[in-house]
Formats: sequence, C-alpha cells, structure tokens
Amino acid sequence: MLERLKKEVFEANLQLVQEKLVILTWGNASGIDRESNLVVIKPSGVPYHKLKVRDMVVVDMDGKIIEGDLKPSVDLPIHLAIYRNIPNAGGVVHTHSHFATCWAQARKPIPCLGTTHADYFFGDIPLTEMPNTEDYENSIGQQIIKCILQNGVERCKAVLVPGHGPFVWGENVEKSVETAFVLEQLAEMAYHTIMINEGNIKTLEEVYLRKHYERKWGKDAYYGQK
Amino acid sequence: MLERLKKEVFEANLQLVQEKLVILTWGNASGIDRESNLVVIKPSGVPYHKLKVRDMVVVDMDGKIIEGDLKPSVDLPIHLAIYRNIPNAGGVVHTHSHFATCWAQARKPIPCLGTTHADYFFGDIPLTEMPNTEDYENSIGQQIIKCILQNGVERCKAVLVPGHGPFVWGENVEKSVETAFVLEQLAEMAYHTIMINEGNIKTLEEVYLRKHYERKWGKDAYYGQK
Amino acid sequence: MLERLKKEVFEANLQLVQEKLVILTWGNASGIDRESNLVVIKPSGVPYHKLKVRDMVVVDMDGKIIEGDLKPSVDLPIHLAIYRNIPNAGGVVHTHSHFATCWAQARKPIPCLGTTHADYFFGDIPLTEMPNTEDYENSIGQQIIKCILQNGVERCKAVLVPGHGPFVWGENVEKSVETAFVLEQLAEMAYHTIMINEGNIKTLEEVYLRKHYERKWGKDAYYGQK
Amino acid sequence: MLERLKKEVFEANLQLVQEKLVILTWGNASGIDRESNLVVIKPSGVPYHKLKVRDMVVVDMDGKIIEGDLKPSVDLPIHLAIYRNIPNAGGVVHTHSHFATCWAQARKPIPCLGTTHADYFFGDIPLTEMPNTEDYENSIGQQIIKCILQNGVERCKAVLVPGHGPFVWGENVEKSVETAFVLEQLAEMAYHTIMINEGNIKTLEEVYLRKHYERKWGKDAYYGQK
Repeated sequence: MLERLKKEVFEANLQLVQEKLVILTWGNASGIDRESNLVVIKPSGVPYHKLKVRDMVVVDMDGKIIEGDLKPSVDLPIHLAIYRNIPNAGGVVHTHSHFATCWAQARKPIPCLGTTHADYFFGDIPLTEMPNTEDYENSIGQQIIKCILQNGVERCKAVLVPGHGPFVWGENVEKSVETAFVLEQLAEMAYHTIMINEGNIKTLEEVYLRKHYERKWGKDAYYGQK
Repeated sequence: MLERLKKEVFEANLQLVQEKLVILTWGNASGIDRESNLVVIKPSGVPYHKLKVRDMVVVDMDGKIIEGDLKPSVDLPIHLAIYRNIPNAGGVVHTHSHFATCWAQARKPIPCLGTTHADYFFGDIPLTEMPNTEDYENSIGQQIIKCILQNGVERCKAVLVPGHGPFVWGENVEKSVETAFVLEQLAEMAYHTIMINEGNIKTLEEVYLRKHYERKWGKDAYYGQK
Repeated sequence: MLERLKKEVFEANLQLVQEKLVILTWGNASGIDRESNLVVIKPSGVPYHKLKVRDMVVVDMDGKIIEGDLKPSVDLPIHLAIYRNIPNAGGVVHTHSHFATCWAQARKPIPCLGTTHADYFFGDIPLTEMPNTEDYENSIGQQIIKCILQNGVERCKAVLVPGHGPFVWGENVEKSVETAFVLEQLAEMAYHTIMINEGNIKTLEEVYLRKHYERKWGKDAYYGQK
Repeated sequence: MLERLKKEVFEANLQLVQEKLVILTWGNASGIDRESNLVVIKPSGVPYHKLKVRDMVVVDMDGKIIEGDLKPSVDLPIHLAIYRNIPNAGGVVHTHSHFATCWAQARKPIPCLGTTHADYFFGDIPLTEMPNTEDYENSIGQQIIKCILQNGVERCKAVLVPGHGPFVWGENVEKSVETAFVLEQLAEMAYHTIMINEGNIKTLEEVYLRKHYERKWGKDAYYGQK
C-alpha cells in the first residue's frame, strides 16, 4: 500500500544523508496521505545504508502500525502532532543538522540577518518551550504546535526544540527536506555573521524582510518562472 | 543568436555551483556582447541541474527579452546598471557565497588583511548604501554603481550589498566567476584572521598593498607569464 | 593466528581515516581476544595507505610481541592498561580528531549541551590529569584508568588527555570507532554552541540527559529495533 | 636534464593542490640538486591543471634560467635564499594555506598548544620581521633566513611572513609538502583551541614538548619503525 509515498519518504530520508543533514541515525522524515489519513515514516534506529523502501512503516493517526515489520521512529508522536494540527503539512523532517542544532543547544532563535533568510522564512526561526519528560515525545509535539500557532502557520515552517534540534514541515516530504537544507545554511550564515559582529545581532530591517519574502511567496510574487 | 556567449554564460553559471559559490538557485551570471549591446543572463529560479544552454535569456539594454522562453533573473536590472555604467564590464556575477554574504550581513566591508587579498583587490571590498524597496532591483543597481564610481572603477570589481551579498564584474563572465571565487576565499580568510585578533582589524600596510597589486596588475607587472 | 580479529582491527584503522578522524599516522586502533588474552594493534608510524592486514601486531598483556614483523604503536601501554582494568573493553581507539583534540588542548571537558550528546554519553567527556614523562605511555594509561573509574566505567567510554587528544573504548573495535566518530561530532557541536553563547556553557538539564540516555541505553530503552 | 627532480617538483606542486593547501596559482614548490647546484621550480602564474613536467624551470643559484621556456615563480629569490643558507634544505614550499595564512595575517606566531604540534615542531611557528619592498623578494628571503637562524635551523622548518603566509623547507620537496600539510592542520587546531579559551593561549608545557619531539626525532627516538 501507498507504494509511491513509501518511495518518496525513503528517498527523502536518503537525501538527508546526501545533503549532510543527517549522520548515523540522527534524523527522520515522514509523509502523509491525506485521503487515507495514513503516515509513512522511517523505522527507528536503522542505519541509512541498510534502509530499504519496504522498511518504511505505515501508521494511522493514532500511531498504530498498519503495515511494516519494524518499529517506527521514536519521534513518531511529534510527526503525528504536526499532521493533526497543521492541515497543510504533507511532510515532516527532523534532523540534528550541525549549525541548526548548535543554535538549539545555545537556546537561541536563529535570527534573520539577511535576504537569503528572508527569501524563505518571514523572520526568526523560533525556539519552542521545553517539553516535559513524563510524556516526552507527545510533549515535544505539543510544544512545537504551540510555537507554530503563536508564530503563524504559514510563516513558521521550522522550529528549534531547545537543547535538541530542528523540526521542519512542508507541503510534502521533498519540500520539507529542502527547507531543512536551507535552514542549515541560514543557521551557519547567522553563526558566522554574529561572530564578525562580536555577538551583536543586526536583524534585517522589516522592509527588506517583507520585500524578499513577498517577491518570492507573496500574491504578486515575481521571482522564478510561472 | 549569440550562441558562443550563451554557452559561456551557461558554463559560468554551472561553475558557480561547482566552486560551491552557489547552492539551489542562489545566484546568477551574465555576459554582454558589446557589438550588439545584447545581454545573456540565467533565467529566474531554475535549478542548476536542470539548466540548459538554450534556457539562457537574451535581453537588450532596456531589459526587453529578445530571445528565450523563460523570464530572466530578477536581478537583471542590477546587471544592466553595471553594463550601462561600466564600459569595461563584460560579465557580471551575483552569489550568496557563504563568507562574503556573512560580511554583507554583518554590514562590514571585507578588510584587506594580507597579500592574498592585495594580489586581487586594491583595498577593502566596500559596502554599498541600502537600496530603497519601491524600485528595488533598480535601486540596488544604482547603489552599486555609486559605490564603484566612488572607489574607482578599475580597483572595485566587487561590492557587498548590506544584508544581501556580493556582486562582481569583470572583463568577461569567466573572469567574473574567478573574481567571485577569490572574493569568497578572502572573505573566509578575513573572518578567521579577525577572530584570532579578537575582533581587531590589522589592515595590510599601504606599501605592501601597492607592491602586491602592482607586481601583478601594474604597468611594470612581473608576476605570471607574458 | 587471530585472523578475524586482525582483519577487524585493520579495517577499524582504515575506517578512522575514511571518517576523517585520523590523518597521516595520527591514531591507532586495537582489539582484544579475551579467550587468549592477546591484543591486536596497529604497527607504529606506518602510513595508512601502505597498511596491510598482515602488518597488524599481536602482543600479550605484558606487551610482548607474539606475532608480527613490525613494532607495535607507541601507545600500546595505554591500550593494555585499558584492557587490564576494564573487563568489558573489547576495543580501544586513539585519534587526534580535530575538535576533540582542540578541547583537550584547551584543557576543558567537552560539555554535554544537548540531546545528541546525551544519546551517547551520560554527561561531560572528562579530562584526565597530566601524566608524568618518565614512564610516559604507562602514566597516560594510569591517568585514563583513574579518570574512567572516577566517572563510572559504563558511563565513561571516552576521555581527553590534556594537551593531547581523545582515547575511546568499546565492546569491540568497530564500536570504538563509532564512538570516536560520535565524539568528534559532539566536540564540534559543543564548540559552535559555546561560541554562539560567547563562551558561556549552558549544560543540558539532568532530566533530559537522563531521559535521552535511558531511552537508548537504559533497561526500558525503546529507541531502535529489538 | 634533472628529469627525476623535475618530476618530483612537478608532483609536489600538484600534491599541494590535492591536499587543498593551494588554490588557483597561490603557491609554489621547488627542489635542489646539490651536486650541480641547480634548482627546479614551478613557473610563475601557470594554473595547476595546465602544468606539465616539462614546464618546470631549471635555474642556477643566481636565478639564471638554465633550462625552460617559462619564467620561474616570482618567489624564486626566496627559495634561493633558503638553499644558499641552509645546507640541509633539499626542498622549499610556499602556500597560502588557509589557517596558516590567517595566523600570518593576524601577525601572530602559531602557538604550540598540544602534542600533535610537538610531534613535528619544537615550539611555536615564528613570524619573520617585515621585508622592505624595494628589493622585495630578496628581502623576504633575508627575513626568513634571519628568523630560521635565530630559532635554530633544525627546529625551524616553517616560518610565517607577516601579512603574507607560510614558507617551509625540508630535506626534499616531498617532505616539505608534508610539513606544509601538517602546518596547516596545526594552524587550524591552534585556531579552534584559542577560541574555546576565549583568546587565551595555554602553551604546552616544555616537558611534554620535549618528550613528544624527542620520542619521534631525538637520538633515542622510539616512534615508528627502524
């Protein structure tokens, strides 16, 4: 079942490794089929070089395994929370990509310091609050949803869980991987920029933030082909 | 028409990716044919791995499309401003290369800290003033021209637009790519150098700046073969 | 003799180079056969690209060569100290991997700043005390054992020798290489994290440290497949 | 003539590129034949991918071209100064390798912060004084010799020219390339180490410096094979 989505999710997981966003088993990608309300996700703790399409796990919105011999990623409850609360989410990606994770470990949002950032995100990449550990993965999911809703769904396709790392969503799993890739580049640019300024953060002026975001994603966008 | 120039511009755009100056669609290169006053430029927002020679767009000096099925880069007005105001410009390159962009985001010129820099540029890589956003791309072009003329055309083959990134020109598009490549190396060297000095900038003495620049580019240059 | 272990140790040494943990001759890996109490170790100062399986040196627990034409690594006494004092140690790896070595040179433990770290190590990677130089390699071994015992054997699979670099042990040589690889990633993450925080160290809260370590390695672990 | 040396010098120059110590034309390597007192050096400003064995230039100790159609490197006088003053020098290498050049631009010696450094160099990598620009390349040569003699020939196989970059010598050109490679690794390690320590430099204690240097290069060396 869902052979096409399984292939997409499989390839998205491999691309995370190719783009150097994930090493070892430090990440996972999933996609949802909104018609059947079934989610396809990477199995837990399987090394990427051994991963096969048929290892992808199919679960329902309660996390019950519908197809697959392996356990799904431990982060499944986080993916499900996003799918349940964000109707436009077609894919979710979690990585420990280097610089994005360093900002999360430093407990600081990734500031919007330039037009490269503004071409993708309308403002800073926010931090969630800390989850509780009693119902850990569900609590991470709740904090992520709370953070996304506070910042505005369309403008907030990526968040940082403090001390942990980035979670990203998109209209499908392939787009989510691209967003995770862009996020890592922006995190590294922000890092070196504040170093030059000895820790001071000079945020991009609102007028340029709006201009760049709108010329690419706004209703009168003129970047790219039709 | 202009098949040779189209091929040069196409290859220059690909080289930007190979040299890791551009990822995704974050950059563009163009070249001009001074006889016909026609400019060949990359189309807007097309991924590099899908780009073909025939996708290159031919425009006149007013930006009117003369040949090509795709929209030209949104930065076309910037390229045209340079071609109109700098008769020696045969090529223009814009990238978001990592360290050059970080200096632009930090709103600081790239300081000339060593002979590697002086071998290519006579002094710091300057920042333009901020453009207005009403006539955005034209305003960026004007600020770049203003900055180049203030610093001296021959000595100023690269500028940084604050919060955005580097723009480079050269006698042709291939040389412009090389200059963009060198700029990125110098930007990274300047970064690590000021870090060692805890933020202090120890500019290369004028006498060595002049010596290195002149031995390579001056009338009595003795670097390289005849 | 011990052909299988020799092959494992050989491949582990090569993997150190492939994972960029070792350049030139800056590292060594060994494994022990607990039945015969014999250790297989890389020869001293042989470039990796010339290394062959048959170059591996077999020694007894006193360091006496049992098989092999080459001298064993100068660090052999350190490996032996670990095998003698830690019954669970099946492999030992020493590298000068970049960031782990920089923390050692800075004379600071690698702090646990995030869940990526907590997924592998229960707390900071400690520094040993300084060895004496009269009985140098034996003294390094003693300091490492002292440090591991103080921190708890199971929780302390890696230490830093101040001014020198990391030493790692594991249940076998392959696992030790993986631990050395993870250690380097954590060292680099910790580096960039404290830079963002201008030198301040915000250690991961105990509750998250415990949660992540236990969900992967504890008695009720639920990360990964059964 | 000197076909074997020409091949060695050619390959050493290419290796500088492969090891990422040199980009574009930013470096040069030479070797000397002490019997004929002839030096083989890279030609000036020729891109490495176009370089051929027969392009190597043969000069005498006064810099007169004995064989070759191309002009020798502009740095030839520096190479000759080293060959004239250091009888053990069989090869000379100059690069603008990234971190070594950054230390030179920061006008600071590369401090000896660990045993990795002590395995190759007995103490800091010193800075020369500034050359004059009237007789520029000869003056650089003189400053390098002065610096090497002050620090002790055998202990000083690498120096930094302030604002410029590293110059290295060795018993032959191949060994000189290796030393230039090691120097770059040490320069990068020293960089990240002092960053962790917020600019403070904690030099390796003399007793460990001596121990590591002597166990590898001293009369009772026991590192490596016989």
